[in-house]
Amino acid sequence: MHVQVFTTGGTIDKVYFDAKSAFEVGDPLIADVFRQAGVAFSFDVDALFQKDSLDLTDADRALVADRIAACDATRVVVTHGTDTMPETARAVSERLAADSGGAAKTVVFVGSLAPARFKATDAEFNVGFAAAAVQTLGPGVYVAMNGRVFDPEHVRKDRAGNRFVEAPAS
Amino acid sequence: MHVQVFTTGGTIDKVYFDAKSAFEVGDPLIADVFRQAGVAFSFDVDALFQKDSLDLTDADRALVADRIAACDATRVVVTHGTDTMPETARAVSERLAADSGGAAKTVVFVGSLAPARFKATDAEFNVGFAAAAVQTLGPGVYVAMNGRVFDPEHVRKDRAGNRFVEAPAS
Amino acid sequence: MHVQVFTTGGTIDKVYFDAKSAFEVGDPLIADVFRQAGVAFSFDVDALFQKDSLDLTDADRALVADRIAACDATRVVVTHGTDTMPETARAVSERLAADSGGAAKTVVFVGSLAPARFKATDAEFNVGFAAAAVQTLGPGVYVAMNGRVFDPEHVRKDRAGNRFVEAPAS
Amino acid sequence: MHVQVFTTGGTIDKVYFDAKSAFEVGDPLIADVFRQAGVAFSFDVDALFQKDSLDLTDADRALVADRIAACDATRVVVTHGTDTMPETARAVSERLAADSGGAAKTVVFVGSLAPARFKATDAEFNVGFAAAAVQTLGPGVYVAMNGRVFDPEHVRKDRAGNRFVEAPAS
Repeated sequence: MHVQVFTTGGTIDKVYFDAKSAFEVGDPLIADVFRQAGVAFSFDVDALFQKDSLDLTDADRALVADRIAACDATRVVVTHGTDTMPETARAVSERLAADSGGAAKTVVFVGSLAPARFKATDAEFNVGFAAAAVQTLGPGVYVAMNGRVFDPEHVRKDRAGNRFVEAPAS
Repeated sequence: MHVQVFTTGGTIDKVYFDAKSAFEVGDPLIADVFRQAGVAFSFDVDALFQKDSLDLTDADRALVADRIAACDATRVVVTHGTDTMPETARAVSERLAADSGGAAKTVVFVGSLAPARFKATDAEFNVGFAAAAVQTLGPGVYVAMNGRVFDPEHVRKDRAGNRFVEAPAS
Repeated sequence: MHVQVFTTGGTIDKVYFDAKSAFEVGDPLIADVFRQAGVAFSFDVDALFQKDSLDLTDADRALVADRIAACDATRVVVTHGTDTMPETARAVSERLAADSGGAAKTVVFVGSLAPARFKATDAEFNVGFAAAAVQTLGPGVYVAMNGRVFDPEHVRKDRAGNRFVEAPAS
Repeated sequence: MHVQVFTTGGTIDKVYFDAKSAFEVGDPLIADVFRQAGVAFSFDVDALFQKDSLDLTDADRALVADRIAACDATRVVVTHGTDTMPETARAVSERLAADSGGAAKTVVFVGSLAPARFKATDAEFNVGFAAAAVQTLGPGVYVAMNGRVFDPEHVRKDRAGNRFVEAPAS
């Protein structure tokens, strides 16, 4: 079993720079989480962006979709900021649907609501959840947050509740 | 989606008692992990034992199997010590195979190689992994460790390597 | 032994609000640190502000000084943001020097360069350091950071190096 | 300012070996704690033993005392298991009293009631406390636990309460 990871930034990778009291996206932590868990699958991590997901553009989303479509792997995890995760997942879904080879891929989007560098965080749980989802689900594009697998067409972030919930198709 | 959890003890729940420099099984932590992850499924936790899995008896395993067979849930997670996890999973598998209703259940065994109370632990990742596996896999009994889903008939703990590996049927 | 704590905010108490991707000052954590350490001295915690120290005004500093001068305790710890910690410490020092009773107080300023809510943080170490300093040092006002006791007149934050260093009197 | 550290083992350095479900003394962690806190003093760490303090012998205590008496440093921290910390501190105190040069040294014993590798631990606080105590206290031998500085002649571990308390001279 091989898993290809693309990282795009988001809360999961946020760090705090006291020198300017700012909170920015740092290096991807998912490989550290995999290693601490002693995962028995092989993986590659490709860092595409280090962005807050509110700053991702359509061109960025197209690049994510292109990279997924072009890679050899059939099992792909994307770490992503939570604010626009469903949008990027839908863009990838559309791109793969238009692509004969893409139809055979399982793509799982995941992130976290608290930074992985926090003591109290959902990051390790979520990465573990995504690691199982990407191995057990059939082809398709999924959003894995709050311990649930969502269809990108039927999920939204409830910002007030700070959680992902099912939603009518947008 | 509802998940029934049975806890039996094991490293995942180990605590350290300095007063006697001993390391014992404490209260189950899985509900805390679920809450910290803000899981969007309902769950019940039933603590069956607080034992090192080397101390589990055949009667204990029969009790675990009975409780799983008797419960209403079709999605069941069992937290368990790593040393005899495959044995208990096989006992449950045999029991459910002999039971008409049991055939419809998805049962995932999980634990951790380092206590959940440690800073560096596989516990949160593993619990997240099991939470996805129990929701996405079809009926059957599975061992979820080291980021992989194993068939209880074909897994063993490599004690020297401190990890779970595939193994010929025992 | 009794220790009076005044909290003013700063990095030590920062939390992350994903809903707006902002990093704000949360509830004071020093009492949690004391409790986790099982401290054998009594303490009170009074939260004066929840501010980034760059936002503290002269009026705020005067209030801190007044509260310290007016309190019954002779052992006082102040948690404070790092950017203007020396300024507030000097303001308190001047106020106490002008006050007959104030001359008998030991006041220790402390904070952290990484939030206490981070896995990797200097917060617990620094709070422990301050707890010892406030009990062992004679009357005076001190800045306790980076494992050193500094005279407020001879310390500055080296922002590029993200640490406190000795400095000529300002 | 220079601090010499001698480590002897104890709970602070305990690790958990799942392969045998045992809890043993691992590598000293105090240097990691100092580095994470960005301490602005120089230090050396010398690992003398990796023992549970119940296993320390009179010969071991004599060795600790000899090493402290013989070292160049005047500021010495000793990390030590909690069960016999006062005994070793008294042995060191007697040795230094019989030694002209020893009289000029400040020696602080410290450990922790929960392993430093735990999420919830007093280790970082205690190490920070000891770092301040060793710099601010005059010559003598001290036990620094539970946020207090104790005279080795008047302290004992209350095993039931799992904390250090004042005690009549033994």
